[in-house]
Amino acid sequence: MENWYAEIITIGNEILSGRTVNTNASHIARRLTSLGYTVRRITVVMDEIDEIVSAFKEAMNRKPKLIISTGGLGPTYDDKTNEGLAKALNKELELNTIAYDMLLEKYSKLNIEITEERKKMAMMPKGAIAVENNVGVAPGILVEHEGIIILATPGVPREMEDVLETFIKKYLKVKPNVKYVETSFVLEGVMESTIAPYVKQLVKKYDLYIKTHPKGQELVKPVLEIQVAGSSTNEEEIKERVQKAVEELKQIGKQLGGTILQS
Amino acid sequence: MENWYAEIITIGNEILSGRTVNTNASHIARRLTSLGYTVRRITVVMDEIDEIVSAFKEAMNRKPKLIISTGGLGPTYDDKTNEGLAKALNKELELNTIAYDMLLEKYSKLNIEITEERKKMAMMPKGAIAVENNVGVAPGILVEHEGIIILATPGVPREMEDVLETFIKKYLKVKPNVKYVETSFVLEGVMESTIAPYVKQLVKKYDLYIKTHPKGQELVKPVLEIQVAGSSTNEEEIKERVQKAVEELKQIGKQLGGTILQS
Repeated sequence: MENWYAEIITIGNEILSGRTVNTNASHIARRLTSLGYTVRRITVVMDEIDEIVSAFKEAMNRKPKLIISTGGLGPTYDDKTNEGLAKALNKELELNTIAYDMLLEKYSKLNIEITEERKKMAMMPKGAIAVENNVGVAPGILVEHEGIIILATPGVPREMEDVLETFIKKYLKVKPNVKYVETSFVLEGVMESTIAPYVKQLVKKYDLYIKTHPKGQELVKPVLEIQVAGSSTNEEEIKERVQKAVEELKQIGKQLGGTILQS
Repeated sequence: MENWYAEIITIGNEILSGRTVNTNASHIARRLTSLGYTVRRITVVMDEIDEIVSAFKEAMNRKPKLIISTGGLGPTYDDKTNEGLAKALNKELELNTIAYDMLLEKYSKLNIEITEERKKMAMMPKGAIAVENNVGVAPGILVEHEGIIILATPGVPREMEDVLETFIKKYLKVKPNVKYVETSFVLEGVMESTIAPYVKQLVKKYDLYIKTHPKGQELVKPVLEIQVAGSSTNEEEIKERVQKAVEELKQIGKQLGGTILQS
């Protein structure tokens, strides 16, 4: 199957200090997975130019189809994603006139002048497309580089989501022709290590991703959430394949003395 | 100031598909930050050997003091962290007799035989220390390599936390001699872009990390959470410095027409 890899880069010290949980990356990951992409890596880096440049360069070197970043597009001194992305691409940072018009429109309506800090949000790598932000101010930055689509979104969750959706609807022309299907059920009373060899066999038999998530205590009260997932160009086929694997897993679970709690 | 960088590696497809939010990384990040470390990068990779090897190798190349991984230590086919870590270190994977004794003790109490899948949890890179897991089964793996301390913890949150605490208390002999102080307050009615130039000045003046987190809507109803943080070997000094910066920021916020909501 064709490579439909994607990567996510989160820029922000607040994630690295543990102050903020990286729900933005989860949101982007879920959205891309549902579109048929395989998110291969999530990288979180500091609000520092060198770190941002490295993160983008390393991701580009791994040749995914898509890179989505979040954070660092705002007006403050530590918002450096535009500059970092430009450096990673070896392109000049310039005033993007479309982005500037977006800012002008938003601020002029409220009679607010455009300061240097505000203007910074319209500075983008040469050739970038400004993606409208219907919730906040800073536009997203969209570039294509050596066949890789790169989208930088803001770090405020609602703004990130808005820019991401606009990008998917308006700018993402070529999408994976793949349907991703995922389901799960809960099995009580069987240890993860007991079902492990059966899971291994079924993964091969059905060519699916099957993962046991321990939710209880392995030794005294084992509870497993068993996740079954797969992708195919044929929606009916993958749904059926996942369903068959689930049925067989449930039977095995019961044979091993377990109870199916949730299906 | 000396480099007290740390890195976190999360291993697990469930994070990359967006199914699970990476709260483990946040927990480790908070804990390391509170000890005085600066977490420089968080990397999330798939349950695949090559990906795990790359993640460890790349992190080691950046020469942090500490690398903590989470996930991939269990008994199932997709638990590959021990093998990946061994390859990254260029060391053999061998049966760690101490880890094996830990497993034997846990399983024999319950009259459960040690299968190949269970034995896998005692396979560790040559020379590794098995760190006891008081909550689950799989022990943590501790190695020191070229001056970098590497700890692999399980992915089940309670087990990760337990292994991490044991590591910190029992094995982490050299810690940063640094106190990290962080505080925040909420400012309503001032746009992030309005306060941005003042924040930039204060960052320089106090040599602190100051970050504005927009919580409202920049244009119509701006609400900012302003975070002030810093580290120093002198606890009194850093507390005072953070406090002074907070006071000055509050004054500036009021002068710009804002209201302090929470202090």
